[in-house]
Amino acid sequence: MNKLLVVGTVAFDAIETPFGKTMKILGGSGTYVGLAASQFEVQTGIVSVVGGDFPNSYLEILHSKGINTQGIEIIKEGKTFFWSGKYHNDMNSRNTLITELNVLEDFKPFVPAGFKDANIVMLGNLHPLVQNSVIEQMSKKPTLIVLDTMNFWMNIALDELHAVLKKVDVITINDEEARQLSGEYSLVNAAKKIHEMGPKYVVIKKGEHGALLFNEGNMFFAPALPLAEVFDPTGAGDTFAGGFCGYLAKTGDISFENMKNAIIYGSNLASFCVEKFGTERMQELTSDEVTKRLQAFKDLTQFNIKLS
Amino acid sequence: MNKLLVVGTVAFDAIETPFGKTMKILGGSGTYVGLAASQFEVQTGIVSVVGGDFPNSYLEILHSKGINTQGIEIIKEGKTFFWSGKYHNDMNSRNTLITELNVLEDFKPFVPAGFKDANIVMLGNLHPLVQNSVIEQMSKKPTLIVLDTMNFWMNIALDELHAVLKKVDVITINDEEARQLSGEYSLVNAAKKIHEMGPKYVVIKKGEHGALLFNEGNMFFAPALPLAEVFDPTGAGDTFAGGFCGYLAKTGDISFENMKNAIIYGSNLASFCVEKFGTERMQELTSDEVTKRLQAFKDLTQFNIKLS
Repeated sequence: MNKLLVVGTVAFDAIETPFGKTMKILGGSGTYVGLAASQFEVQTGIVSVVGGDFPNSYLEILHSKGINTQGIEIIKEGKTFFWSGKYHNDMNSRNTLITELNVLEDFKPFVPAGFKDANIVMLGNLHPLVQNSVIEQMSKKPTLIVLDTMNFWMNIALDELHAVLKKVDVITINDEEARQLSGEYSLVNAAKKIHEMGPKYVVIKKGEHGALLFNEGNMFFAPALPLAEVFDPTGAGDTFAGGFCGYLAKTGDISFENMKNAIIYGSNLASFCVEKFGTERMQELTSDEVTKRLQAFKDLTQFNIKLS
Repeated sequence: MNKLLVVGTVAFDAIETPFGKTMKILGGSGTYVGLAASQFEVQTGIVSVVGGDFPNSYLEILHSKGINTQGIEIIKEGKTFFWSGKYHNDMNSRNTLITELNVLEDFKPFVPAGFKDANIVMLGNLHPLVQNSVIEQMSKKPTLIVLDTMNFWMNIALDELHAVLKKVDVITINDEEARQLSGEYSLVNAAKKIHEMGPKYVVIKKGEHGALLFNEGNMFFAPALPLAEVFDPTGAGDTFAGGFCGYLAKTGDISFENMKNAIIYGSNLASFCVEKFGTERMQELTSDEVTKRLQAFKDLTQFNIKLS
């Protein structure tokens, strides 16, 4: 079985949307990536850090999905990373209410021996130096290194971000951040500039407007599934990345044609993630549901024009 | 040859974008719809009104594309409808600088005898009473009546809009306007509500984010082609509608499957429209270019997931 190594946050989230609000619940980019990837026959390991306040039951959720948590360091005297946010009525914008870095502040990622030869490495949204440290711990060059980042790191660690970008194959980034990183408004031009920074593949996430995959003149688009209700968008981007990486890890095929399928799977899984608060929907999601929704994506996008 | 009847404005536009600005040039919803539809083997007729200041050379442009202009009334002592707008840097928002209704103020549309039996009727963005008057002049029930509208008419003539909506098969509307008309934020729910107002098919235009087609539980999405440069978005929505109607008129097939193809053609043609100022690109566009770009749309959207 192919191995997927994920570095990202494992955290507490408190979320408020027009539909309600939660207490501190299980969250974090590593969590969402891992849960999404667990839909595929892949050995997934998460590298992260939590505090002594992190409930064992949350780790059990990950274990129950076959996710290896050896790489999740528990700092007994520390507190788990906590994020709280409130979504506006349109669900497309949100305010961060609280960010407590806690144990994340001095996070030194440790890659367990069993994952130093992972086929695919997903570097979740963390400081570029942390991302780089994971790459350096690999004993074997991975088939594919995927990196996610955000404007925060562009603002405070741009040089380090550029350094790690030279080592990665795929970047996943949202549209506004792609514009910031490249200085280009057009996403086509932005992808071209980011490509020159290192990644052969550029995935631009546009939230409810879908995702674009670019690779040297090739371009593919996966829409988001239009939904009657978006309950909570938290984790949708990470779930998308987890579906993308999980599918590529399972198939072991990193051709552009197969990456198309991978971003469709990413979009597929993300469409479930937003249906309930936090990780709730991803915890209960079955492969039958995923397969059925794949048909919805085909119906949504596939056409058959016969040229006369 | 099937007939397409278009009612819409034939007008002067003066456009300013970050790339430059134009004098008064040929514009209007009827013009853009007609030029797009002229890409198909269809007999297209435009119903509109212009003033004595409207150059014969502009009518010649339409004639050269095989468009019938018998229904374009020329009021010698009147002035042609004039719109001027300025696009912001992101090309997604614009300010209207000037709107001079002129001859449009008392527009009484007149459907020429040869088009009273048109197969497809496209009611461009005009007062709902004008749209209704065109329907009432038809001697034969058209295969399909398509209506475009905007927030302006919702604000000043909502009852008349609801009345005409009961008679149409397809509505094309942008996302914000769909939300306003339905009172629903989710486009899935908005389409459902609008469907209940009359139209069996609801096409929601999302500009650079593509277009959605809804029909009783079925849903299809055509992306906009991501472009390195959008030169001038004026007329893109009408070009989209013209491609949609033109393709349906040519094929004579109004099944949901064929409507998928029609909105892909709409998006295809719209992707050319924005490449130059005003109607310039549409005037020179060849069917070879359209066919070639169809391949770009296939590359962008078609995938082949084999379930194991």
